[in-house]
Amino acid sequence: MNYTIGVVGLGVMGSNLARNIGRQGYSVAGYDIDSEKIHTLVESAGDDIPIVGVASLSELVKILVIPRCILLMVPAGEAVDNVIVQLKPHLEKGDILIDGGNSYFLDTEKRSKVLEEEGFHFIGMGVSGGEQGALWGPCLMPGGDRMSWEAIAPIFRSIAAKAEDGQPCVAYLGQRGAGHYVKMVHNGIEYADMQLIAEVYDFLSCGLELSASTLHEIFKEWNAGKLQSYLIEITADIFEKIDEETNQPLVDLILDEAQQKGTGKWACQNAMDINVPVPTINAAVESRILSGLKEQRLQVSQWLKGTQNKISGNSQQWIEAARDALFASRISTYAQGMALLKQASVEYGYSFELGEIAKIWRGGCIIRASLLNKIMAAYQKQPNLVNLMVDDEFRVELEGCQEAWRQVVQMGISSGIPMLALSASLGYYDAFRSKRLPTNLIQAQRDYFGAHTYRRVDREGTFHTYWK
Amino acid sequence: MNYTIGVVGLGVMGSNLARNIGRQGYSVAGYDIDSEKIHTLVESAGDDIPIVGVASLSELVKILVIPRCILLMVPAGEAVDNVIVQLKPHLEKGDILIDGGNSYFLDTEKRSKVLEEEGFHFIGMGVSGGEQGALWGPCLMPGGDRMSWEAIAPIFRSIAAKAEDGQPCVAYLGQRGAGHYVKMVHNGIEYADMQLIAEVYDFLSCGLELSASTLHEIFKEWNAGKLQSYLIEITADIFEKIDEETNQPLVDLILDEAQQKGTGKWACQNAMDINVPVPTINAAVESRILSGLKEQRLQVSQWLKGTQNKISGNSQQWIEAARDALFASRISTYAQGMALLKQASVEYGYSFELGEIAKIWRGGCIIRASLLNKIMAAYQKQPNLVNLMVDDEFRVELEGCQEAWRQVVQMGISSGIPMLALSASLGYYDAFRSKRLPTNLIQAQRDYFGAHTYRRVDREGTFHTYWK
Repeated sequence: MNYTIGVVGLGVMGSNLARNIGRQGYSVAGYDIDSEKIHTLVESAGDDIPIVGVASLSELVKILVIPRCILLMVPAGEAVDNVIVQLKPHLEKGDILIDGGNSYFLDTEKRSKVLEEEGFHFIGMGVSGGEQGALWGPCLMPGGDRMSWEAIAPIFRSIAAKAEDGQPCVAYLGQRGAGHYVKMVHNGIEYADMQLIAEVYDFLSCGLELSASTLHEIFKEWNAGKLQSYLIEITADIFEKIDEETNQPLVDLILDEAQQKGTGKWACQNAMDINVPVPTINAAVESRILSGLKEQRLQVSQWLKGTQNKISGNSQQWIEAARDALFASRISTYAQGMALLKQASVEYGYSFELGEIAKIWRGGCIIRASLLNKIMAAYQKQPNLVNLMVDDEFRVELEGCQEAWRQVVQMGISSGIPMLALSASLGYYDAFRSKRLPTNLIQAQRDYFGAHTYRRVDREGTFHTYWK
Repeated sequence: MNYTIGVVGLGVMGSNLARNIGRQGYSVAGYDIDSEKIHTLVESAGDDIPIVGVASLSELVKILVIPRCILLMVPAGEAVDNVIVQLKPHLEKGDILIDGGNSYFLDTEKRSKVLEEEGFHFIGMGVSGGEQGALWGPCLMPGGDRMSWEAIAPIFRSIAAKAEDGQPCVAYLGQRGAGHYVKMVHNGIEYADMQLIAEVYDFLSCGLELSASTLHEIFKEWNAGKLQSYLIEITADIFEKIDEETNQPLVDLILDEAQQKGTGKWACQNAMDINVPVPTINAAVESRILSGLKEQRLQVSQWLKGTQNKISGNSQQWIEAARDALFASRISTYAQGMALLKQASVEYGYSFELGEIAKIWRGGCIIRASLLNKIMAAYQKQPNLVNLMVDDEFRVELEGCQEAWRQVVQMGISSGIPMLALSASLGYYDAFRSKRLPTNLIQAQRDYFGAHTYRRVDREGTFHTYWK
């Protein structure tokens, strides 16, 4: 009994990855503390797929090929440490542990260090694609010991999604926490893109009073154009779904309190730590928090009435303008995400190749989009591009969308539609193209009240002024 | 030789607090690792003020009244721990240490716990007011062991700033890290207010092409009205200052790269941890980061040209609209800060009285403003107000400013002036008064790709749909 890989944690993601691996012909041993989940996996796999269930971690370790390869699919946080502690006494030096959960990259850094010192190998691997992706082809973002990765890579290349050009959506990304870092940024972009789509939906449905069926048509059309992406595609599907009991569009019946699991928040918090502006991702996280304060909003809305302004003008023109505003905001968001990766590469020594990251995001993951082909090309052409927005393709796109972008945000603001993410995306663009920002005043204020000193535009040195 | 209080760390803030305490008649012993600073303090104090310098921490401990009271004014972080470690062997149980630096509140929580267990007392005290405030009357925000605080409070009440009604700007705020938490939120509001002023400055100077001398007049006038505050007052002064060598307004010669020391960032990061939206504070921190990326901005600005739109209409009307936009944004910012305090009170058991916090912020600190009288009154009337914006006074103010607020942000967006903080302030207002946000779509998307489930508006329960 020499099984190729062990999977610990057989929830939705773990069991679907196990099935996917088994379907490629690799033998899989699965374990979960819930024996029901083991049974379900083994039974659903059937006879053709080489999956076996085991009753304990020690048994799991016994039936694996040496060096062992064990994929942990348990919730991020303590559970990962607990499984590692329980596994360790049974492992031998050279065995490889892979954490496929949404672990915080600094936790992965710590675990890597400890395990590598003890002679084990550790791979932190981001997995995106949801339950269907896990089963039929996820995007995989591994980081850690390179030699170990190369040893097990064939398994993961075989299960990964394939992009349109047939390339597998997996690549070795760098040492230690590199893979989980990239997954964190992926999720930050995902939060931002979802919020941008939601704000455009608000503009179209509340502002222009378009119905779900019209929105279905609009998003279907958008998905055939430059906005083509998984999130636009599923949004079109969502608007089409009718609730069978009420015969109303299901989307209209869903409560507006969004939940989150923390990866978007981590991206924002870390970006502030390493001095990278990610205003759209921030706005997306803030907007989810605001959505969750439903009870407070209901109370506040009784008192604060807002404006009577309505959207004026031709609906068809506004729909096209909304498309351009969304597209430009999406470019701004990717520019922020790629800038975060670039700086993290310096801070944490990850040696990221941005073109390679864009390349693997083209398939399997939630943020897959035709735009990523252009992003990949931009960084392949200029790996050290100062900012994605100045690449020739994107610069021209942004110039073309710019007036529509401004008009949609203005009209939203005029008519009281919250546009935290759309306005933050535009603010990033406007701030980044500013040679000079009004922060000279802030430096003057800081020097005035705190003697923090300032620099000048016309000479070298550090200055302090007695202002009054 | 029984000195009342010891001060460790005689930089700008430490030495000025020592002078202030000495001037009130309390005897002070000062120590710094830099003996030069000890000499400077003692000499500048003169014979009338009971200040003495000591050459070591052990000597400091020897000459203090028991229980000893030692104020640490060293940089936040490791330096605080180092001084505590060095002091401890010389201290006795019951001695009181006060950390007057900008320590992170969670560090203060840890230090409190350790020191109290060892029998010492620890007060984490936020100090605001800059160098002049420290010397002539700061705002003091203490938290920690209440009995110890009451023992030493007379000293600090005597040196604190007095508000217009004569009340000292100091109050016991709560256990452990409560004082440093309030200081962190104070600084978050400070960052936000400074950024809002900077954006309005950009609108007036780049948009309306007003000169520094005109801006001086405008801010002087604003400071006589509802915007009255320390930051508006010093901004008026700043615009008046002429550089002697070039004969140009000094503000125009200052480099636009703003610096920061981290307290604003901590406020944003912690707000995300405890689920409180603070979009204006976020935008302010992001804007400082953006300002610091000068080299990148210079490169990007060569490529991204922006819009040709200019501000149209009557300048005087725009100046008045800018005033209203700034005022409404400031209310939005304070609403965010007070909401953060309210939630932190629950999370960390601080038992904050929001009216009391507004009360002590009315004098001495950087964010002092006539607005704080109204905020104090609002929370005295309704301590559990759901959000500051719904207080009668503020609701009416926001309604009165609302159209001007929208128009200024729209005009900024139209003409390419970055308005991250002004638009975030308005976004907070618009999102908070929304009974329904478009986040139902986000919940549908999350259920589609991740089986994360959703709730419905028309019935109880948790649902999952096969969307396609």
